[in-house]
Amino acid sequence: MIKFEEAQRLILKKIKRLGRETVRIEEAMDRVLAEEIASDMDVPPFNKSAMDGYAFSHRQIKNVPAVLKVKSEIRAGEYEPDKLKKTECLKIMTGAPLPKRTDCVVKMEDIETLKNNYIKIMKKPSFGENVCFKGEDVQKGRIILRKGAVLRGPEVAVCAAVGKSKVQAYRRPKVPVLSTGDELVEPDKKVTFGKIRNSNGPMLIALLKKMGISPDYLGIVKDKEKNLICKIRKGLSSDIFIISGGVSVGDYDLVPAALEKCGVKKIFHKLAITPGKPLFFGQKGGHLIFGVPGNPVSTYLLFLTLIRLAINRMMGTTLNLNLRKGTVTSDYSQRPGRKRFVPAKIKMQGNRHTIYPLREYHGSADIISLVKADGFMIIPDSITFLEKNSSAEVFLW
Amino acid sequence: MIKFEEAQRLILKKIKRLGRETVRIEEAMDRVLAEEIASDMDVPPFNKSAMDGYAFSHRQIKNVPAVLKVKSEIRAGEYEPDKLKKTECLKIMTGAPLPKRTDCVVKMEDIETLKNNYIKIMKKPSFGENVCFKGEDVQKGRIILRKGAVLRGPEVAVCAAVGKSKVQAYRRPKVPVLSTGDELVEPDKKVTFGKIRNSNGPMLIALLKKMGISPDYLGIVKDKEKNLICKIRKGLSSDIFIISGGVSVGDYDLVPAALEKCGVKKIFHKLAITPGKPLFFGQKGGHLIFGVPGNPVSTYLLFLTLIRLAINRMMGTTLNLNLRKGTVTSDYSQRPGRKRFVPAKIKMQGNRHTIYPLREYHGSADIISLVKADGFMIIPDSITFLEKNSSAEVFLW
Repeated sequence: MIKFEEAQRLILKKIKRLGRETVRIEEAMDRVLAEEIASDMDVPPFNKSAMDGYAFSHRQIKNVPAVLKVKSEIRAGEYEPDKLKKTECLKIMTGAPLPKRTDCVVKMEDIETLKNNYIKIMKKPSFGENVCFKGEDVQKGRIILRKGAVLRGPEVAVCAAVGKSKVQAYRRPKVPVLSTGDELVEPDKKVTFGKIRNSNGPMLIALLKKMGISPDYLGIVKDKEKNLICKIRKGLSSDIFIISGGVSVGDYDLVPAALEKCGVKKIFHKLAITPGKPLFFGQKGGHLIFGVPGNPVSTYLLFLTLIRLAINRMMGTTLNLNLRKGTVTSDYSQRPGRKRFVPAKIKMQGNRHTIYPLREYHGSADIISLVKADGFMIIPDSITFLEKNSSAEVFLW
Repeated sequence: MIKFEEAQRLILKKIKRLGRETVRIEEAMDRVLAEEIASDMDVPPFNKSAMDGYAFSHRQIKNVPAVLKVKSEIRAGEYEPDKLKKTECLKIMTGAPLPKRTDCVVKMEDIETLKNNYIKIMKKPSFGENVCFKGEDVQKGRIILRKGAVLRGPEVAVCAAVGKSKVQAYRRPKVPVLSTGDELVEPDKKVTFGKIRNSNGPMLIALLKKMGISPDYLGIVKDKEKNLICKIRKGLSSDIFIISGGVSVGDYDLVPAALEKCGVKKIFHKLAITPGKPLFFGQKGGHLIFGVPGNPVSTYLLFLTLIRLAINRMMGTTLNLNLRKGTVTSDYSQRPGRKRFVPAKIKMQGNRHTIYPLREYHGSADIISLVKADGFMIIPDSITFLEKNSSAEVFLW
């Protein structure tokens, strides 16, 4: 039985970042860049008006009020190549390029319109007034997104701005899911006496889909070594293979032995945590295998704290668990020896979390109580008693 | 010009929760339940062994050590109908149903195996030891998930456990996106002088896809009323229509007028915030229309704070913005009059956030600086100066 932190370390040591693939930026949210993105141009690409107004050179105006003739008009997306005389200006719209030898834009509010296309300037303009200069945001060739950057809204917009409609991102792993157990039937099938419904399977598939992964569901396999080996062979060509059930130490917990027969090397089996103790972690070449217990609370915890971490790391993200400090609202006692994750309702009060361990929760099969929780309170393995109002760590989902 | 809070109120007032649709539970993460889910059976559905061990009635043992004959074996998924004699027990596996008149399971560790299928019980067992009783987690018919519950891992598992492989969830809105502006070209097209690339379009599509919405992208339309009206008509049959650009007050900001010609009633136009002031919000029957400015920082802010809120509310969630208190690391001064959202790097120190406003950021067109931010520092409209080390509100993305 190994410690939780040791398990994390052993898992992360085995993770290799996956290769890259081309992704359209519209589909790339939360993906990790596998290339550097440089600007292919100056941004803005020309001196640009930041306002609707009148463009000229600030040197044209010695004293105010001054009168200029409006030669023509220039809109965003247009180009006005004509040179201006010293007595002329151009009406200009936000986003339009400033003509040569102009360097300021005076706002509508700061002029008076006269007859015959003349305007009167009331306030002396300064150089660069209401102008975004070429290359002000970024110069051509500069790296604007580094390899490893996670794509959020701004990153997608930046890629678009510099002409990257597709980017190289680390690919998502192939993650098949296999449920095992003679007692299991799928949720849409009839339950006969002695059977229960498969809840780990749909939950794992849903959790993986939320991560943007398209998991391959291999169904339920009976607790027979021959059947198990056949299904395990199917899943082994993947990046991460999740097998639910059959990893405890009973006579019919056949998964570790069947995995071994398929050439999987055990890295560890059993963790000093509650729930989730029977976790199996193994490897065959570049393929990693997680065997999680059939109890859904255990599997949910192991997925969030270890499997998800491994998947994220493969895709290039190193996001940590959302751990916070909180105050426990009731005394809590436990048997020592294992790190315990206690389902809890967690309320935010100011910047502080208040922890209400679920009273009705009675063990790792009790998925129904878990819907009332927002996270797990974490009790270190050495602690037997936690007094009301003391501080504890919480893992927020 | 209306206040931000007033805009939020006006928007939320117009939101109607959408109708329901059937969704497979594997696809239902983050969806909102539009029905109550009751358990269709007792959970567990039978008295179940929580351990591998030996099942009998605790009354069979008056004194220890005691000897019992192992009659047969029962595995998870099997049913053992035979009655036991007072001198007999059954070997039982985790998850298997307890036969009639048995009420405890003694673990392997607490017995000694003898010859000829006999075992010696070393410790007096108690009633219910290592047994999960029928209906202990939930009784048949009890409501276990309420209408309005957000589906996470545990909720998906619970639905599976009670046989709901599909659920009724509030449907996702239809959200088309239209970009406007003569100066815009799509990211994969050549940029000629005076043009810039469309970054709002791909960003909005990506942000919507992240919410699980399949947006309909209507492309770029030129600043011509006829073209605008034609495209607007296409988008108006949706739940929420997002139009980017053309909502300022310049001569070629034609969107509000074109919307009006299409029968859209203005609810408000212009907000007292920076960036994002030109926001337009209107309505035509049950269809809501957001006109956002062309600058991507404004659009990102407006999407996160207002449009996303509206979409979530339509789908039945009432998640609030992730607002926290933090400490500003430098003096900050501003012109008063509008609530200001300042892009900032935000670091977590303990339970406290430290705010580093981006120094290089120069305005709502500067999407390139925005990739360095984690959120916005929020400065109320009345404040002109914020001293270093004072407290400010931050909106974490």
